[in-house]
Amino acid sequence: MSPVEIVLHRLLGDLEALAAVGSTGDGGNCRLALTDEDAGGRELVVGWMRGLGLEVSVDRIGNVVAVRAGQDPTLPPVMTGSHIDTVRTGGRYDGTLGVLAGLEVCRALDDAGVTTRRPLAVAFFTDEEGSRFAPDMLGSLVYVGGMGLEQALDAVGIDGLRLGDELERIGWAGAAPVPGPSPYAFVELHIEQGPVLEEAGVTIGAVTGVQGISWQEFELAGQSNHAGTTPMRLRRDPAYVAAQVVTYVRRLAREYDGLRGTVGRLRLHPDLVNVVPATATLTVDLRHTSNDMLTTAEDELAQFVADTATREDVTVAATRSLARFAPVGFDETVISLVERSAQARDLPVMRLPSGAGHDAQMLARVCPTGMIFVPSRDGISHNPAEHTDPALLAAGTSVLLDTLVELAA
Amino acid sequence: MSPVEIVLHRLLGDLEALAAVGSTGDGGNCRLALTDEDAGGRELVVGWMRGLGLEVSVDRIGNVVAVRAGQDPTLPPVMTGSHIDTVRTGGRYDGTLGVLAGLEVCRALDDAGVTTRRPLAVAFFTDEEGSRFAPDMLGSLVYVGGMGLEQALDAVGIDGLRLGDELERIGWAGAAPVPGPSPYAFVELHIEQGPVLEEAGVTIGAVTGVQGISWQEFELAGQSNHAGTTPMRLRRDPAYVAAQVVTYVRRLAREYDGLRGTVGRLRLHPDLVNVVPATATLTVDLRHTSNDMLTTAEDELAQFVADTATREDVTVAATRSLARFAPVGFDETVISLVERSAQARDLPVMRLPSGAGHDAQMLARVCPTGMIFVPSRDGISHNPAEHTDPALLAAGTSVLLDTLVELAA
Repeated sequence: MSPVEIVLHRLLGDLEALAAVGSTGDGGNCRLALTDEDAGGRELVVGWMRGLGLEVSVDRIGNVVAVRAGQDPTLPPVMTGSHIDTVRTGGRYDGTLGVLAGLEVCRALDDAGVTTRRPLAVAFFTDEEGSRFAPDMLGSLVYVGGMGLEQALDAVGIDGLRLGDELERIGWAGAAPVPGPSPYAFVELHIEQGPVLEEAGVTIGAVTGVQGISWQEFELAGQSNHAGTTPMRLRRDPAYVAAQVVTYVRRLAREYDGLRGTVGRLRLHPDLVNVVPATATLTVDLRHTSNDMLTTAEDELAQFVADTATREDVTVAATRSLARFAPVGFDETVISLVERSAQARDLPVMRLPSGAGHDAQMLARVCPTGMIFVPSRDGISHNPAEHTDPALLAAGTSVLLDTLVELAA
Repeated sequence: MSPVEIVLHRLLGDLEALAAVGSTGDGGNCRLALTDEDAGGRELVVGWMRGLGLEVSVDRIGNVVAVRAGQDPTLPPVMTGSHIDTVRTGGRYDGTLGVLAGLEVCRALDDAGVTTRRPLAVAFFTDEEGSRFAPDMLGSLVYVGGMGLEQALDAVGIDGLRLGDELERIGWAGAAPVPGPSPYAFVELHIEQGPVLEEAGVTIGAVTGVQGISWQEFELAGQSNHAGTTPMRLRRDPAYVAAQVVTYVRRLAREYDGLRGTVGRLRLHPDLVNVVPATATLTVDLRHTSNDMLTTAEDELAQFVADTATREDVTVAATRSLARFAPVGFDETVISLVERSAQARDLPVMRLPSGAGHDAQMLARVCPTGMIFVPSRDGISHNPAEHTDPALLAAGTSVLLDTLVELAA
C-alpha cells in the first residue's frame, strides 16, 4: 500500500470549527436535528465536502452523501460516515468524528494521489440522536428503507413541530430518493461512549455488533396511606416493590454474563414524605448481544415483578414495552479487517460490542458493515466533558483510512 | 350524674352544614387555612357558638375559644376542641368532629340544665394542617407559647402570601393575647385516621400520646453513565443504593416493635430510561412512641446508608433533618378517665398511640391532656372518602361529654 497518512491538525481544526456551531460555551454542543444550529453545521461540512471536490447529494430526509470518484464508477461506493446532530448537552466528538475523519481520509488520499478502485462516500445522516424527533437513527433507518418517507416526515418533535416542515424550513429537503443506493460496505468510526477501551488500555475497538435493547416500564399500584397511622403489616407499598425490582435488576445483570440492566427512571406518586405512595412507576433498560439471553432476562424480570407485587398485595397496573431492538451482528470480514488494520499499525486492538445505537446498525441491513471505536475519557459522552485524546483520534482515523482503502481496492 | 345525652342528628346537621363550606363536590372539603373558605367555616361555627351563649374570644393568631360559664368563674376551664381547616383534598371529619362535638356537649348540658363547677371551653386552632403555612399545628403551638407571634405571622404560604396579611384580610386577627391562658385540662375528640380501631373492632381509642417523628432526606451522588455502554462492575449507581435503603427501612420497622418506616419520596436525576442516574434523593419517615427507640432507628439507618453507599462508591452528598419531634405522652389521669367513660357506656375501648400529629400534643405542654379516637373507615383520611359511621360519632361524642363533665366537676 502507498504510504498514505492522515494529517491530525487538519482533523482537529475541522472538529474545532464544527464545535463552534451551536457551542454551549462550556466545551459542549447543542445542534438538535433540523434546528438552525444543525443547518449551520450542515453548511460548514458540505462546504468542506465541495472543497474536496466530492459529489454531494442530499436526499428527501436530509441525509447527505458525498462521493469521491473511484477508478470504476460503475461500482457501488465504500461508505463511511455518521451524524452531526447532537443531544441537548452534547460533546464535540459523538458523530462528528466519524464524518470529519471520513473527510480527512479523502484529503489524505488526495495528498498521496491515490484513487481507489471503488468510489468512496462520506455520509451524515439526519436525526441520529433522536433527541428532537423519535426514533433515533431516523435518517439512516429511512436510507435503508426501514421506515417510509412520509412517516418520517410526519414525526413530531419535542417542540411540537413536524420534521418535514423543519427540514423544508432549514432548506435541507433534498431531491435524492429514499431508500438510497446500497453501498458496497459501510464502516463507521465513533467514540466508544463507554469506559471499556480506556480501562483495558486499548486504542482501537473492532466493534462486533450492537447490543439488543429492551426498555420496559412497570406501573405498580398499591394503597396510599398515612405514614404515621398505618401499621407496617397493613401496608401495600408500591415503592417497596419497586425497590426490590431495582435490586433484582442488578442481581440479574450479575447472573447473566454480558447483561446490562439499569433502572434510570423511578417515580412515586404522590411523592410526599409522610404518605405511603399510591403508585410507583419505573423503567428497566436491559441489553445483551444475544437475543435469546435478552428474552430470558425479560421473562425472569416479569416473573419477579409479578411475584414481588403479589407478596405486597400490590397490582402490576401496566407493563409497557418502550423499545425493543434485537442485537445486530456486524460483518466478520469487516471486523477482521479493522483488527488487521490496527495490528498493521501496531495499535492495541480488541473486539467489543457497542452498548449504544449507531447509524451503522441500520446500514448493516443492506451491506457488510463494521465500526471502529476509539476510547472515551472516563467513558463520558452526551456531556460537554466528552473527550478523546488527539493521538487516539489520529489512530482511529488511520485505521479507518486503511480499512476503507482495503475495502475499496 | 344527671342523665345527660347528646343528640346525634344535631351533630350530624352541623357536620353537614360545615362540610358545605368549601365543598369539593365529591364529598370532600378544601378549607386551607386563612382562605375565604376557612373564613366561611369560621363564621358558621362562631355563629353557632354565639347562639349557644358562649363567650367567644379570638386571639392574635386567629385561634377561637368559646367559654361556657361554670359555677366558679375563677377556675380555669376544661377545654376541648380541634381545628376546622383542612388539607387540599380533605374529608369532613378530620378536626371538625372535635370542634362540633364540643358544641354538641354544650347543647346537651344546656338541655339537661347542667352547669359544671369549672367552665368548659370549645376551641378551634388556626392552621392545624400546615397545608398552606408551615409548620402544622401552628395555632396551638403559638397558643401554648411554643412559637412567637411575630414568627408565626411572618410564615409564608405555598402561594407566597404572608400568614399575618391573610389573617387580617379575612378579618380574623383578634385581640386576645398569645400565649393564651392554660386550661385546667384538654381533651380532643378526633377520627383515628388509621385502621387500628376498625381492624380490632373497637369503638373508642384512649390515646396514650403521639408518636415521635423523624423525617430525613438523603441525597446520594454517584456517576451518571450510559446504560448501554457502562459495564455493571464500573457502575456507581445511586438508585441502587436508594433501593437498598427502601428495603432496609421495611426490615428495620419489622425488627423494632412499634416502629413505622416509610419512604414516600424518591427522585432520580436525570430520570431517563437509558441513563444511570447521577443522583437519588429520598426521604425516610420514622415514627415511634419511644424517643430512645426512634434515635436508635435513626442511628442504624444512618450507618446502613453510609455502608451501602460506600460499597457502591456512591457519596452521601447530604443528610437533612426535615422534621424531628419527640414523642408526646398524654396524662395518665385523662387516659384512664377516657377508658372508664367508655366502659361505663359499655363501649369497647383500647389504648393506642396516635400516628398523626394533633393540637392536643401542643396543649399537653401546659396542662393534663388526652384524646379520644373513633374509627376511620378503611383507615382513610385526608381524602374525600374519609368516613366514620354516625353511631361511632355519637359514641365518641358521648365519651367526650362524660370525660369533660368529670374533669369539670
